[in-house]
Amino acid sequence: MFDPVEKLKEYIRHPSVSADPAFKDGMVGAQKFVSGLLTEIGFKVEVVPTALHPVIVAKRMGDPKFPHAIIYGHYDVQPPDPLDKWNTKPFEPTIIGERIYGRGTADNKGPLMVHIAAVARLLEKNPRLPLNLTFVIEGEEEIGSKNFKTFLTQHKDKLDGDFIYMSDNGILTPDQMIITVGLRGMLALEVEFTGPQSDLHSGMHGGVLMNPLQALAEFAASLHTPDGRVNIPGFYDQVVEPEAWERGELKRVGLEEKAYAEFLGIKDFHTPPGYNPFEAIRFLPTLEFNGFSGGYQGAGTKTVIPSKASCKITCRLVPNQTPENVKDGVVNALKARCPKGVTMTVTMQHAATPYVVIPPDRSNTPRDQSPALAACFRAVDQAATEVFGKPPIYLREGGSVGLLADLKEVLGLDAVMMGLFLPEDNLHAPNESFHLGVMKRGIETSEKVLAKLAGM
Amino acid sequence: MFDPVEKLKEYIRHPSVSADPAFKDGMVGAQKFVSGLLTEIGFKVEVVPTALHPVIVAKRMGDPKFPHAIIYGHYDVQPPDPLDKWNTKPFEPTIIGERIYGRGTADNKGPLMVHIAAVARLLEKNPRLPLNLTFVIEGEEEIGSKNFKTFLTQHKDKLDGDFIYMSDNGILTPDQMIITVGLRGMLALEVEFTGPQSDLHSGMHGGVLMNPLQALAEFAASLHTPDGRVNIPGFYDQVVEPEAWERGELKRVGLEEKAYAEFLGIKDFHTPPGYNPFEAIRFLPTLEFNGFSGGYQGAGTKTVIPSKASCKITCRLVPNQTPENVKDGVVNALKARCPKGVTMTVTMQHAATPYVVIPPDRSNTPRDQSPALAACFRAVDQAATEVFGKPPIYLREGGSVGLLADLKEVLGLDAVMMGLFLPEDNLHAPNESFHLGVMKRGIETSEKVLAKLAGM
Repeated sequence: MFDPVEKLKEYIRHPSVSADPAFKDGMVGAQKFVSGLLTEIGFKVEVVPTALHPVIVAKRMGDPKFPHAIIYGHYDVQPPDPLDKWNTKPFEPTIIGERIYGRGTADNKGPLMVHIAAVARLLEKNPRLPLNLTFVIEGEEEIGSKNFKTFLTQHKDKLDGDFIYMSDNGILTPDQMIITVGLRGMLALEVEFTGPQSDLHSGMHGGVLMNPLQALAEFAASLHTPDGRVNIPGFYDQVVEPEAWERGELKRVGLEEKAYAEFLGIKDFHTPPGYNPFEAIRFLPTLEFNGFSGGYQGAGTKTVIPSKASCKITCRLVPNQTPENVKDGVVNALKARCPKGVTMTVTMQHAATPYVVIPPDRSNTPRDQSPALAACFRAVDQAATEVFGKPPIYLREGGSVGLLADLKEVLGLDAVMMGLFLPEDNLHAPNESFHLGVMKRGIETSEKVLAKLAGM
Repeated sequence: MFDPVEKLKEYIRHPSVSADPAFKDGMVGAQKFVSGLLTEIGFKVEVVPTALHPVIVAKRMGDPKFPHAIIYGHYDVQPPDPLDKWNTKPFEPTIIGERIYGRGTADNKGPLMVHIAAVARLLEKNPRLPLNLTFVIEGEEEIGSKNFKTFLTQHKDKLDGDFIYMSDNGILTPDQMIITVGLRGMLALEVEFTGPQSDLHSGMHGGVLMNPLQALAEFAASLHTPDGRVNIPGFYDQVVEPEAWERGELKRVGLEEKAYAEFLGIKDFHTPPGYNPFEAIRFLPTLEFNGFSGGYQGAGTKTVIPSKASCKITCRLVPNQTPENVKDGVVNALKARCPKGVTMTVTMQHAATPYVVIPPDRSNTPRDQSPALAACFRAVDQAATEVFGKPPIYLREGGSVGLLADLKEVLGLDAVMMGLFLPEDNLHAPNESFHLGVMKRGIETSEKVLAKLAGM
């Protein structure tokens, strides 16, 4: 019988860090491991090259009258740094209590293994399963899925499924399933101010010119209103208010502001009026500063007026904003705020379109939706209710997963995202782990989902 | 015969960066080089230890009836960073055209060499020179002369001169001597803001809390009025208006705003009302930002909300402000500007009292002044007029030399400061250089000054 924990251990031992060429062997090892595993359980595997790391496409077709699920995952992981903060070796999976520790356990090797195990078990019991299944497992998710959209466009014919089914998203407690139904988009920018043509001595020249740091401060301070809204004309024009059922789902989670404030280590929240922090993260766009730089930053004092100062900004976007429909407004507003006495450049960095999918039987607003997608949502709802003892909660999240918009745009498919990692799983951080109880319940749920879709 | 350019080259090759312990050998090398040079020309040298870098005290006493000049200089230099901006190697002196390039050429190795050369030449011609001379050359000027006041207090008996004679100050054109008669004081502070207890993912948590970078921007933007004044209550209360002769001297310089703007590489000045830029530098206090830091500063994007953000501030002070009489007002004002949602710490760094000396025959306000000091001022006036073909100009400067207040306070001595470096010498910046024509005329002038003081 398929032993998912032993298989996961083996998978973790391949250090598949996509960002670092030094880990090439780990990337190839992880790819071959997953390809082999899927071949073993009856899939026809194709390793499709891209400009960097290949994508695994594994198919097992049943009866064309049954749904065709595209199961997405990624075999690459974040770099393990800083190594000295790990209590175990990042690429030597270690079980302590109810958790398995190691880089990639939660993001995304454990969750992907959940679905592979569910499929394996279902096929052990039903070798003639009529369901159509295609795994698409990429190797560049942790570096922004740079080549994924090109892959999708070039291999669209291999991916003629009915919906995406995946788990690269979170839950909040081990005993409550959460289905992610939306993610924020992103618009990343860098703004640089130039004052004098070179760094100046702040004694010899201080007090006669606009210091680029002062300009940066005035500029940055102008971008929010005192109540915490983004102070850019038209920024909220496209924003769609959350529907009543969405606020209702969020209430069902039972999140407490006090506990969240303690987790963050802050005294007061600073959210725009009309939104509690849990709503603000999910339903409102932001403009956040990710870094300021300019002048001297070492110990002590250096009496310099820097020639340049800069800041990094990311806007998170929500439906129906898109990088395209907000970009000009944001860039023009930034440019209009350039203080006198300095010049300014605005550089666009990456962008991602926000994503939202409306589960059936929730919204009062009727929508065109594929019957197979609706069937998958209903199967997940029933299966999760059976396994977890209560219905799942449907939530949008604050982060961004740009590939969802790509899947929607290129393949025309929406995604059913079954959450599997917990806030304390330390994704992208030292001591990443995956909860074995969640893994077990996840496999059970996914097996039921697939069985239901196969009419069993 | 003493070759000052060759000696200067040798001196520059010792990388005497006082701020960085990695340059310890360079510090010792520069100290031994100067000590050796002064010994060679007939001085009795003592290397006086301090808590960090020793002070060189070199004496050559003549006839007690003649004046005793204390010649001040420093053998330490600024760090050479950023190295990639240098066109030559910072510690390999390189002559290009009429300039010698290298870290410390202008600040202060070249100017000190001017006086050593003047003394050497005068002694070559007059081995029985009746003048009393003491060089005091410290090694911590670039790190705020931290131990210099203690040194002065402990070795006061060795420093019973009549006045300080020195060149650690500037001129504006190579053909016009400027005597510096005042320097601004300083109050350096670092302000740090703390928001969440650790760095946060700006997707997962963005939009719910006060970002420390936003707090820094709001705080920093509040510290100036739109017309360029420092926006701190009472900040200007002690400021004394310049005397009419001072504005008159400044007019004599014939500075042109357009040329200054071109030199700085800016389109518009940003000076408080009622002061042109040349006046603002000299007669007004400032609050300048010297560095901002916080968050991600590398290439591309990192979607982080940093836990901390900080800024470095220096206030320049003018008579009759002192670090003591402005400190509380500034710190209280900074603390009152802390935005909601973050905490703030203000750390005092170094401080310097502003300095002013009134040259004889200029001010209409009569003052008690030592005859030896007045004699030195007059000797410099005559010598510079002879060498440069026109009388020197007496100006206050924008920089700070805190040790002048210390010399005044501990030894009771005022200073005659003969300017030698030019605005384009790039002090504290890449491609520092010293003008060889100025060096030559400086040596000639200084030799004449000393000869006049020796009654020759």
